[in-house]
Amino acid sequence: MKNSDLNADKVYENGGIGGGCDDDVVLGVDGGTTSTVCVCMPLLPLISSNQNLPNPLPILARAVAGSSNHNSVGESASKDTLEKVMSEALSKSGSNWSAVRAVCLGVSGVNHPTDQDRIIHWLRDIFPSHVKLYVHNDALAALASGTMGKLHGCVLIAGTGTISYGFSKDGREARSAGAGPVLGDWGSGYGIAAQALTAVVRAHDGRGPQTALTDCILKALSLSSPDELIGWTYADPSWARIAALVPDVVSCAESGDQIAHKILVDAVQELALSVKAVVQRLSLCGADGNGSFPVVMVGGVLEANKSWDIGKEVINCIHKLYPGAYPVRPEVEPAVGAALLAWNFLVKESERHHNS
Amino acid sequence: MKNSDLNADKVYENGGIGGGCDDDVVLGVDGGTTSTVCVCMPLLPLISSNQNLPNPLPILARAVAGSSNHNSVGESASKDTLEKVMSEALSKSGSNWSAVRAVCLGVSGVNHPTDQDRIIHWLRDIFPSHVKLYVHNDALAALASGTMGKLHGCVLIAGTGTISYGFSKDGREARSAGAGPVLGDWGSGYGIAAQALTAVVRAHDGRGPQTALTDCILKALSLSSPDELIGWTYADPSWARIAALVPDVVSCAESGDQIAHKILVDAVQELALSVKAVVQRLSLCGADGNGSFPVVMVGGVLEANKSWDIGKEVINCIHKLYPGAYPVRPEVEPAVGAALLAWNFLVKESERHHNS
Repeated sequence: MKNSDLNADKVYENGGIGGGCDDDVVLGVDGGTTSTVCVCMPLLPLISSNQNLPNPLPILARAVAGSSNHNSVGESASKDTLEKVMSEALSKSGSNWSAVRAVCLGVSGVNHPTDQDRIIHWLRDIFPSHVKLYVHNDALAALASGTMGKLHGCVLIAGTGTISYGFSKDGREARSAGAGPVLGDWGSGYGIAAQALTAVVRAHDGRGPQTALTDCILKALSLSSPDELIGWTYADPSWARIAALVPDVVSCAESGDQIAHKILVDAVQELALSVKAVVQRLSLCGADGNGSFPVVMVGGVLEANKSWDIGKEVINCIHKLYPGAYPVRPEVEPAVGAALLAWNFLVKESERHHNS
Repeated sequence: MKNSDLNADKVYENGGIGGGCDDDVVLGVDGGTTSTVCVCMPLLPLISSNQNLPNPLPILARAVAGSSNHNSVGESASKDTLEKVMSEALSKSGSNWSAVRAVCLGVSGVNHPTDQDRIIHWLRDIFPSHVKLYVHNDALAALASGTMGKLHGCVLIAGTGTISYGFSKDGREARSAGAGPVLGDWGSGYGIAAQALTAVVRAHDGRGPQTALTDCILKALSLSSPDELIGWTYADPSWARIAALVPDVVSCAESGDQIAHKILVDAVQELALSVKAVVQRLSLCGADGNGSFPVVMVGGVLEANKSWDIGKEVINCIHKLYPGAYPVRPEVEPAVGAALLAWNFLVKESERHHNS
C-alpha cells in the first residue's frame, strides 16, 4: 500500500483532508473590476491532487457582489464587498465562518506584495490562524479555472483589459501587461476599440486613410459626425463602454476593411507577445522549447467565435513559438478555479504533513 | 486720398473704429483646461488691419481664473468662470460691460458648432446685439497670438494635449488632432510621457527592450519598482501630471537612449502629420506647393530649447513638405491674440461699412 493510499483513508475518515469535519468548506473568490463572485465548496474527499475531480463539482453556493478592485472603489469598499460576498456564500450554503478551512481570493488590482499583505491582514480579523489564506491577482483564479486548480501554465485574459499570468511547476510566477490602457495594454478590448476610434478621427481630419469603421462606429453610437466622438469619449471615462465596440471592429475586418484588419492583427501580436514574455521568464516551454504547458484563454476578446477569430489567431502565434503550448477554454468560472486552488493548497499541506 | 485714409480720419475722430467712444474696449479670452485669461484692450486707433500695431500694445488689464473647458468643469462652471474673468478684466481697466464693442473667446473644448452656439447664446444675455461676438476653440487665440490677430496660417499647439488649427485667407478653416489621448493625440506631452511609461512597463515584464527611461522615471517619481507605476498612474487621472514627465524623456534621448529617442521621433512625425493634414485641406501652400504661410508654434513640448529640440525637428519636417512655411514663436499670450482678433473683426466690419 502506497503512502498516498494510507492518506486517502485518513482523508475519507474525516470527510475531508487531515483532521477536518464533515461540514468543512473552502471559499473561492474572483474579485473583478465590475463584479465579485464567491463560491463555497465542501472539502472534496480525494486522495491527492493528482486524482480526477468529481463531475459535476459539488458547489454548495454562489454569491455575487460589486467591484472589489481597490483601485476602482477604494480599500474600505473593497474590503466590505469581499466580506459581504463570502458571508453570503456561507449563509446560502447553510455554513458559517468557523467551517472555513481555506480561502483563495483572486482580486483584480492586487499588483504588489503590499496589496496582498493588506488584504491578508484584515482577513485575519475574520479567520483564525489555522485557516489557509491565499490572496493574489484575479488572473490566478482565471488560470485555475482552466487548469482545474493546478498552478501551472499561463493564462491570457483579454476582456476590457488584458493581462498574462504564469506559474511554473517549481513555484515561480510572472506577469505581463495588466497595467491598464495608459501603460500600453494595447491588445485589450479597450485598446482595440480605442485604436478604432482613433482611426475614425484620423480619417476625418486627414491624418489617416478612410475606413469603414467610420460609418460602422457612428451608427453603433448613434452619432452623426466623427467630431461628436470627442464629446462621447470623454462624457464617461468607463473603459468597458469603449471596449464594447470590439464586435464592430471585428465586423469591419470581416467585411474586408484593411484598417480594422490591421488593428486586430496588431492586437493579436500584442496578446501573443504578452504570453511569450511570461513563458520566457518562467521557461514554461522547457530547455528544448517543446515542453508542454496549458495556455488558459479567458475574456470576451478571445471568445468571439467569428470568421475573424482573435483567440484562434493568438493561439496560432503562440503555437509557432511553442509547439507544446495547448490552449484551454475554461469550463468553470474563475471563482470555482479559486475554490479548487484553496482545496489544492489543503491537499498539498496534508500531503506534506503525512509525508513528514 | 485713398478710401482707407478717409476711413482713418474717421477712426481717429471717434477714438476708435466707426462710431465708438473714447472709452470703448475689446475683450480677448483664452479659455484653457487649466486656466482662463482675459485681457482688455482699448480700440486701437488704426487706419486698417494692414497697418503696423503699436508696440508695446496698450493692454488695459489682465485677469486670470480657473478652467473654462466645459468638458472638464461642466457648462455652468465654465460659464461662471468666463463671466467672472471678463468682469474682472473690465473692472481692473476702470471700464464696464457697456463699453465693450467686441469679444473674442477662444475656449478649449469648443469642438462643434453646437458648443459655439451655446456660448454665444448666453453671451447675448450679457452683451447687446451691436457687440460683436466671436467664439471658437482656444487654438484660434493661439494662432492669433502668433499672427498678431490675422486669421491666416496654421497653429500647432503641443502641451499636455495637441491640436493643429488652420485658417485660409478666403475664410475656410480646418483642424487636426485635439481629440484627447484616447483618440490618438500621440504627439502631445501626455502622449510622449505615456509612451515612455509604457516602455518602462514593457521592459520590466519582458515585452520590450531595456531602457534608461526606467531609472530616470522611477527617480523622478520617487518609486522603487516599475510595478508601482500602475498605482501611480491611476491614482490621479490628470493628464498634465503624466505630461510633466516629458523633460525626463528628452533627457534620456539626449543621453543616447534609443527607446526615448524613438518616442520623440514618433512624436515629431505625429505633430508634423497633424500640421500637414491642415495645410493640405486648406491648400495653405498654394497651387504650386511653395506658397508662404505662418506655422505658429505653441506649447511646452515645442518650446524646449535643448539639444533634442522637438519643435525644431517638427519645423524641419514641415519645411521639407512646404518650403514656404515659416515658423512663428508668439511674443504675446493667446488672450492678447484673441483681443487683437476681436479688434480685427471690428476693423473689417468698419471697412465693409465704409466701402459699401
